[in-house]
Amino acid sequence: MALFGRKKSVSLVPEVGEEEQVDVASPTLPEAPPLDANGMRGVADHVSYLLSLVSPLKPFGMGLLEAWNQVMCEDIDSMINVPPSNTSKVDGYAVRVADIGGDVESVELVGASDRLAPHTAVPVHAGDILPRGATAVLPTAFGSRSDGRLRIIDAVGEGEYVRAAGEHLAIGTRLLSEGDVLNDRAIGMMASAGIDRVLVRPRPRVVVVSSGDELVEPGSQLRHGESTDSNSFMIAAAARAAGATVFRVAVHSSDPAALRRTITDQLIRADLLISTTSGRREDYEAVSQAMSELGLTDSVDVAMSPGRTQTFGLIGAEQVPMVMLPGNPVSAYVSFQAFVWPLIRRLAGASEHRTVLRAISTTPLSSVRGRTQLLRGRLDTSSSVPTVSRISDPHAMAELSRCNALLVMGEDVESVAAGEHVMCWPLDEI
Amino acid sequence: MALFGRKKSVSLVPEVGEEEQVDVASPTLPEAPPLDANGMRGVADHVSYLLSLVSPLKPFGMGLLEAWNQVMCEDIDSMINVPPSNTSKVDGYAVRVADIGGDVESVELVGASDRLAPHTAVPVHAGDILPRGATAVLPTAFGSRSDGRLRIIDAVGEGEYVRAAGEHLAIGTRLLSEGDVLNDRAIGMMASAGIDRVLVRPRPRVVVVSSGDELVEPGSQLRHGESTDSNSFMIAAAARAAGATVFRVAVHSSDPAALRRTITDQLIRADLLISTTSGRREDYEAVSQAMSELGLTDSVDVAMSPGRTQTFGLIGAEQVPMVMLPGNPVSAYVSFQAFVWPLIRRLAGASEHRTVLRAISTTPLSSVRGRTQLLRGRLDTSSSVPTVSRISDPHAMAELSRCNALLVMGEDVESVAAGEHVMCWPLDEI
Repeated sequence: MALFGRKKSVSLVPEVGEEEQVDVASPTLPEAPPLDANGMRGVADHVSYLLSLVSPLKPFGMGLLEAWNQVMCEDIDSMINVPPSNTSKVDGYAVRVADIGGDVESVELVGASDRLAPHTAVPVHAGDILPRGATAVLPTAFGSRSDGRLRIIDAVGEGEYVRAAGEHLAIGTRLLSEGDVLNDRAIGMMASAGIDRVLVRPRPRVVVVSSGDELVEPGSQLRHGESTDSNSFMIAAAARAAGATVFRVAVHSSDPAALRRTITDQLIRADLLISTTSGRREDYEAVSQAMSELGLTDSVDVAMSPGRTQTFGLIGAEQVPMVMLPGNPVSAYVSFQAFVWPLIRRLAGASEHRTVLRAISTTPLSSVRGRTQLLRGRLDTSSSVPTVSRISDPHAMAELSRCNALLVMGEDVESVAAGEHVMCWPLDEI
Repeated sequence: MALFGRKKSVSLVPEVGEEEQVDVASPTLPEAPPLDANGMRGVADHVSYLLSLVSPLKPFGMGLLEAWNQVMCEDIDSMINVPPSNTSKVDGYAVRVADIGGDVESVELVGASDRLAPHTAVPVHAGDILPRGATAVLPTAFGSRSDGRLRIIDAVGEGEYVRAAGEHLAIGTRLLSEGDVLNDRAIGMMASAGIDRVLVRPRPRVVVVSSGDELVEPGSQLRHGESTDSNSFMIAAAARAAGATVFRVAVHSSDPAALRRTITDQLIRADLLISTTSGRREDYEAVSQAMSELGLTDSVDVAMSPGRTQTFGLIGAEQVPMVMLPGNPVSAYVSFQAFVWPLIRRLAGASEHRTVLRAISTTPLSSVRGRTQLLRGRLDTSSSVPTVSRISDPHAMAELSRCNALLVMGEDVESVAAGEHVMCWPLDEI
């Protein structure tokens, strides 16, 4: 807390007794939403609170292909007309309708020109740009040529057989709006309108910091008491799936000072920090201590199962958001989907609303009123009515690797009978 | 054709008269499927034929995070047990069940050891690894200590209160199979099983070659007769959305020799080549000529609307697949989705089957028997029953940029009434 607002060049190791010197005006996080009767914060409240503390990244101009799948930060209106000028739809003669009405029998036939003089006509082919002044095209069959004059057999009205400038696309037509995702068709549209750069938000850069002195890299020989770090790999991949550019950093320590150094080093390239641990108390406490020394933190019990214990912080002078995930792999993954996914989307300026699919549960499900439960399930969308089966496995990572959806039982849902609908968050593209 | 099978260092300009010297054993494409009564190839036949000409890329070993979202090319079985050894579920005493049965009143209580000697017991805590020889745990309440001996109050059966080695995950359990996509949960599972590298297929490298001497880059000032190249940008983005690494190259020429040089230069980095043009006949013919000079080609009318004219080739000594897309943006995009998307998936070793969604059409649709029609539509999945509205716009690129799905009317479908179901290919993630 004491270091909040300092420049990064200042030593980040707190001096003894410094906390007593903090004055009353020291920064704090904005007021958090009220807790429920059990002292817990609702899931929706927690999501809203975290989103209120994080702003979308600054947009910048990117080439079209580089900006693919990013969120537009500007409205784009067409600066061109399609077609660019009035053109003829048929073979015939460009005419002024006013010249050929009434009892006019013929007009003078002249050669191609930029401008159609009164009482003249100019031969045109389908697709030709009309000379200025022309207000219609007389199809070939509607006239006859003789002695340098065009005899009018049938008249035409204003604009007939003319494709007007901008008829297909007019200057000023809104092509893309702020918030739209620049997909492949939108890129085609931009290019065809002559636009080669657009203002989009960059991919958020997420740093996953793995800590814990008993965690080793996969592939290492395990010694007594050690286990392989897997949460940080899973969460790094989940952040990538959410659209982030991801860096993974392993501290291999539960020393708060080492953690502080690593977090401080990573602030330069992080739009969001995520902490993963093995879930031992000493690992949790070390991260918690480092976070509160480097920034403003919010630790709260959320009315969610799994994933009750949630810690968020705004770290360093730049107030980089940081989430500490629980140590159990299932709790970590569910917490990521519930709370970190919306933050990554907010940073990218994209919609924070998940795709929700209604599926028929093949098994009965139960939950506790007042708590959101996120069960693991296997969704089957191959038939016209999607079904979902709960997955449960004593090995947390095996349970996760078998699931492809989270089953959401809201705070007001106590049970779902087999054959009833349950809301699902698909975890892979469907 | 004449150059097929040669080394790349050989001149690629065919010599005069060379064609007459080609012997009868010169390579040709395998026999194509038969045409229908109208001289056209069915869409399904064309897809199968192209897929039969393309093989998945060679797999290689990648780090877990690098391999995210790629297709596994090996089966992975667990090489570890979880837990790694037999452990106690409770506080109590490790015992041999054979030693405490019948009328045995007590066994000798000894200190912790790797191996449990006959007629002895060792105190254990919940989670402790059991000494070898122990076959059960006697919970604390089931015995009493006195004089260095453990009196048996209640007996236990074989394996009781023991979590067996591999009970949560046994050595040899299949974790991932060839063909599985390495998603975030699978990455977590791999890491937890100590696996840091996996054999996956790389992202296909797609080179989009834009040609046509009247096409200019977006952002350029247009001179008379020029238009902005947009197809190549749209198709490059579509290939990226299909999972490819994409390079875009603009030839700015309709000279077959220039095209041949560019295509030959790109073969080194291309797993697939895609040609886009503005659709002028001379552009089409230049690409067609270059393709047949550099490889074996298949030009056919496919029973599809739009996108009837399809040209495929296997180019150069390495037989790199190449698709020439039609020039009209709608035809090009639809052809990409119907024919190039499956090829990119095949190269990646991924499923070539699209997500198909049944949606209710808000408007009547009509088609021609014997022809597959791919209409552009706007899919709305916000309600429980998806609906789709046909999009039609005289400006091809505007039509595409407003659509988010293709409506598939198969060869046997002549009409769909408003309110009836139609099959859709969603174009964006849903």
